[in-house]
Amino acid sequence: VITLSSDFDSFYPAAMKGAILSRCDARLIDVSHELPRQNVRAGAFWLRELLPTFPPAVHLVVIDPGVGTDRKALIVRAGGHALVGPDNGVLLPVARALTNKSESESEGTDGERRSFETFEWHADDPASRTFHGRDVFAPAAARIHEAGIASIEGTVAATPTEEVVDLSFPDPTVDTEVAIGEVLVVDGFGNCVTNVPGTVLDGRYGDELAINGELICVGATYATVDPGTRLVTVGSHGNVELAVNRGRGDEAFDLGSGTSVRIDR
Amino acid sequence: VITLSSDFDSFYPAAMKGAILSRCDARLIDVSHELPRQNVRAGAFWLRELLPTFPPAVHLVVIDPGVGTDRKALIVRAGGHALVGPDNGVLLPVARALTNKSESESEGTDGERRSFETFEWHADDPASRTFHGRDVFAPAAARIHEAGIASIEGTVAATPTEEVVDLSFPDPTVDTEVAIGEVLVVDGFGNCVTNVPGTVLDGRYGDELAINGELICVGATYATVDPGTRLVTVGSHGNVELAVNRGRGDEAFDLGSGTSVRIDR
Amino acid sequence: VITLSSDFDSFYPAAMKGAILSRCDARLIDVSHELPRQNVRAGAFWLRELLPTFPPAVHLVVIDPGVGTDRKALIVRAGGHALVGPDNGVLLPVARALTNKSESESEGTDGERRSFETFEWHADDPASRTFHGRDVFAPAAARIHEAGIASIEGTVAATPTEEVVDLSFPDPTVDTEVAIGEVLVVDGFGNCVTNVPGTVLDGRYGDELAINGELICVGATYATVDPGTRLVTVGSHGNVELAVNRGRGDEAFDLGSGTSVRIDR
Repeated sequence: VITLSSDFDSFYPAAMKGAILSRCDARLIDVSHELPRQNVRAGAFWLRELLPTFPPAVHLVVIDPGVGTDRKALIVRAGGHALVGPDNGVLLPVARALTNKSESESEGTDGERRSFETFEWHADDPASRTFHGRDVFAPAAARIHEAGIASIEGTVAATPTEEVVDLSFPDPTVDTEVAIGEVLVVDGFGNCVTNVPGTVLDGRYGDELAINGELICVGATYATVDPGTRLVTVGSHGNVELAVNRGRGDEAFDLGSGTSVRIDR
Repeated sequence: VITLSSDFDSFYPAAMKGAILSRCDARLIDVSHELPRQNVRAGAFWLRELLPTFPPAVHLVVIDPGVGTDRKALIVRAGGHALVGPDNGVLLPVARALTNKSESESEGTDGERRSFETFEWHADDPASRTFHGRDVFAPAAARIHEAGIASIEGTVAATPTEEVVDLSFPDPTVDTEVAIGEVLVVDGFGNCVTNVPGTVLDGRYGDELAINGELICVGATYATVDPGTRLVTVGSHGNVELAVNRGRGDEAFDLGSGTSVRIDR
Repeated sequence: VITLSSDFDSFYPAAMKGAILSRCDARLIDVSHELPRQNVRAGAFWLRELLPTFPPAVHLVVIDPGVGTDRKALIVRAGGHALVGPDNGVLLPVARALTNKSESESEGTDGERRSFETFEWHADDPASRTFHGRDVFAPAAARIHEAGIASIEGTVAATPTEEVVDLSFPDPTVDTEVAIGEVLVVDGFGNCVTNVPGTVLDGRYGDELAINGELICVGATYATVDPGTRLVTVGSHGNVELAVNRGRGDEAFDLGSGTSVRIDR
């Protein structure tokens, strides 16, 4: 399996599919091509949520505002998966999530954290300087699929590298009185996903909590409140989410990506 | 084959794909993830049109405004297909369509209508209360795919149930003088699909009929009228459709989902 | 492999998938279903860019404003591929691109241009006159997939035809002083793809050129200019493209499909 993720929207993803199928017979699974455009951090958030649901696979990830510059082409091996994409940070949060998942699933006994491995990919001279998804990353994904994820170092184009661009999400401030974080992303339903861990709502379901100064019902599901009513809940990612039952949380709370959120516990 | 249908738009469908592929090697076919959001009736309409085109398969359907409440997880077996989704009515119109298609294709001789069968699915305690598509329905679809559609009752999680939420579309009033119905859905081209059977236009192609009081050409194809001109035709679903050649019928007729339509025959 | 391309957006493509899978077990690859609506020329442009990236396959292409009229159903065999769609010109630019690619890849010695072959497809009486994607073209694609692309003439429904609707893109005027062309399409990033060959920028990278009278930087990659700054570059299709680094070229240059572009060299 090779999965495909990008911010390309329509048209261009097909060229990556063609480039892969011209080189190998992998099964192709579209993850999303509507990742927020040229937004490396939002892409990293969504892929960190989505890719660990997959069995070991090659994941082609192209959010690449620096296409054609000298940023590296990066391969990351993590938890049996291979990630292929530009070296701009988008791959590393996913890699950590894949490593953690792999560890929690294996019967690890040595207590030592086995981390992910990073390789620089040396592409043949690409046909274009504006579409490395088609000309560099898709061929790399096909080559790794054919060689096997365990054999990345055996492919002549891959050399180990330690210098990679990392990316992290802002940490929330949580104490017994208050949790202060921010909205990481807004999903298509308008639900505002924060960086505050869902555990701050433990034991408070059915109560009201002050969210940015307004009392909001804490619900285990969207439907615990009437349609059109705001609630605070824990989303499928395990974080605090601000939402409206059958409506849009971003509009009702007047929140967007990056807005700060204060929860009085 | 497992098909996937939802109102999730981007991002979340990939988590269902990952959850399935982690459990079985089924072939995945996206039907649509842009079904009208949290609109069970519109989803039922489109799936009733689309899923009967498929050969027997497991169809995962997630339009689920009641996620996390005590609404059942439902499995329906109909015409050799299995439908998996929430018990809110979205599956039943499709089930009837699949049963009818199966009957009309088989050489039925006993004259007795073999209907569909319904099962409640008892999920393991799901990881989230807000994303049963990933945590309940996708695993159920994978399990049924592995067990075989004929063996749903052999899977420990499925028990027969008779109490299911049904859903029906409004009936039109049709007599020799007039047909009164309503717009069921508007498609992406702006074509307004009504609940009036296409047979009311039989023998009238080339004529004009009064539609909500205005004379409109009856055409067998969109291109029977000039670009930009309104027409009444029969859509691919067999119902009367109000359209504009190379334009949007919803705007030109000022119609939307639920608007009433009167045809003087 | 059968690829699917259309201007259907959501819902209707699934009916084509079902119609194919009911007839054969082909692997299905979505190219795009968001091709510009009922815009044969723009569809032809994108498919000419995308389909040659694929290995030999059956390509189902449905942009069909004349559905239900007496326009032919067309099959084109080119470079080992088969194209299936309406006879309105959308298939021919792709066919030429597939033929050229096939020639440049083979060790052609006879110097003679082997062109593509065109067949009319005689469908069984289709179920609808408004959805030939489902009722005519998808079944034809399945039949050709089963028969084999080399054996199209062996299928009873296909007869050779020479009379087909062609389509060409406007030619630019290029001399040593000036190149005058037009915008062919605008992609989802807002990049304006022109019909001017990228070779007019040879040797000018880093310079400024007058584009419609304004001096614009010539860059090999989007990131050669600051975010928000306009540039002229060569896109992945080999043509001159007017863009903004991390922004929208169509808005910044005030250009759209069909607008003329003058480059003083």
